[in-house]
Amino acid sequence: MDSSTNGGDLEVGGRWLEDSRRWFEGALERFLPHTDLGPPALAEAVKYALLGGGKRVRPAIVRLLGGAGADPAALEAAAVAVECIHTYSLVHDDLPCMDDDDLRRGRPTVHKAYSEATAVLVGDALQALAFEACGGASRGAAAMTVALARAGGGAGMVGGQILDLEGEGQDLDLASVQEVHRTKTAALLGASAELGALAGGAEGARVAEARQFGLALGMCFQAMDDVLDVTGDAATLGKTPGKDVGAHKGTLVAAVGLDAARLEAAQRASEARSHANTLGLGPVGLGLIELLLRRKS
Amino acid sequence: MDSSTNGGDLEVGGRWLEDSRRWFEGALERFLPHTDLGPPALAEAVKYALLGGGKRVRPAIVRLLGGAGADPAALEAAAVAVECIHTYSLVHDDLPCMDDDDLRRGRPTVHKAYSEATAVLVGDALQALAFEACGGASRGAAAMTVALARAGGGAGMVGGQILDLEGEGQDLDLASVQEVHRTKTAALLGASAELGALAGGAEGARVAEARQFGLALGMCFQAMDDVLDVTGDAATLGKTPGKDVGAHKGTLVAAVGLDAARLEAAQRASEARSHANTLGLGPVGLGLIELLLRRKS
Repeated sequence: MDSSTNGGDLEVGGRWLEDSRRWFEGALERFLPHTDLGPPALAEAVKYALLGGGKRVRPAIVRLLGGAGADPAALEAAAVAVECIHTYSLVHDDLPCMDDDDLRRGRPTVHKAYSEATAVLVGDALQALAFEACGGASRGAAAMTVALARAGGGAGMVGGQILDLEGEGQDLDLASVQEVHRTKTAALLGASAELGALAGGAEGARVAEARQFGLALGMCFQAMDDVLDVTGDAATLGKTPGKDVGAHKGTLVAAVGLDAARLEAAQRASEARSHANTLGLGPVGLGLIELLLRRKS
Repeated sequence: MDSSTNGGDLEVGGRWLEDSRRWFEGALERFLPHTDLGPPALAEAVKYALLGGGKRVRPAIVRLLGGAGADPAALEAAAVAVECIHTYSLVHDDLPCMDDDDLRRGRPTVHKAYSEATAVLVGDALQALAFEACGGASRGAAAMTVALARAGGGAGMVGGQILDLEGEGQDLDLASVQEVHRTKTAALLGASAELGALAGGAEGARVAEARQFGLALGMCFQAMDDVLDVTGDAATLGKTPGKDVGAHKGTLVAAVGLDAARLEAAQRASEARSHANTLGLGPVGLGLIELLLRRKS
């Protein structure tokens, strides 16, 4: 174990994640009444997707990078924005023409609970909602909008989904798997950190450092996902272990083997720690990294 | 014919539309190299959708409302943003689970030319691109982002699509049809005018007046669409006349009859003229209204 981390950090990280989750649910409750979600059939399905639980990791990253001096309203807007983008991506990824999943967090996916057309439109509405939130942020709105659009668009998350679909049934090499991880997952965690830093009034190099922290955290997160797909058990994982390998998705484990995949996760965690130290994120930052690295599901 | 309009206005409007179309194709050519569209498979399909022609009515409205004092870069950003939103909505509306169309402007729709998954992702990437453009605008970026997100989201365009799908096979009354028209079509034309005004440095009441102009223009446009669906011929219409009535879509003609539908279009045109006069848009504004009112397709 890295000498800079210990069980205390892990506990601090866990508490941060739980506090942030509660803070975020409150932020959503404050945000939603001020916006018009549209016709009842749409509004209900949007809420079904958005209020369906989840660990709210991205808002926790926003909150961490905002720091003590963050503008509270801008911080909430940024957290709502990144979680809306994440949620829309899950709704669209679950569609029959994409990953075709019937269950998400133990509940029917949006297209199962409502209809395919509704699921497409819920995703579209959530993406618009994300930009309504960050465009209305009381600090850094324009910079937040551009950062989120790039991370969530063709060069980021959406591009990653195309690469992931293209990679099915293929033997991907390490660089190709890393490119999928960077775009599909890490880009949005990078943007979460960036938006948090902007809400905190950061500029220039500190914003870029925040994004690097989020990116490294995202790469670690996704590497662990591929490891857990092989080593996790169904009960803690909430899905069938080996599902991705079985579907011939180009995973890190398929590309380089289990030990090298674990090493990749550890290296990315180490990178994230280095950025956390530069940013002065303290025990919470280190604890959050440990949590992601050691998670069982 | 309204005494405030004449053949000269019509010609001026036509020239404006054609000049604006050329200006907009240039704006796209200037914008696209500065952004990363993502992996080649996605970038190609995004360009297929975005560069597939069209009258570029929304950018023409942006340009008109920007006026002589508009910031050129902000005006281009606004035009790219509204057209990206419009284009993504067409790609998603054409999907099998939505309107299930195989052809768009005489070419295979995106899901036919590529795949359903690609079409979902192309739409998603185009929405992100819209916000990348307006978030990066050199003037009014934050206000543009919020206006576009509201007009394009659940309370606007996306909500209109849900209402339209719900209305299939039902007898809708006038108010319900108007609500579909307002949300599905007019909201984005309202935002086009609003973004143009913001790029022109307008504030407060003038921005609201611009939005009202665009909304009235959109209501007129959509009313004429329903009239042409019944009276147009296939050659000029580019689609089968009576298609919407045949599909039991809740059209204006089905709700109130052909004559009352024509009257509704004329009344909305009159509203638009009144806003155009308040805004001082001159013969170009009046000509653009005439063009939409008298179009044959």
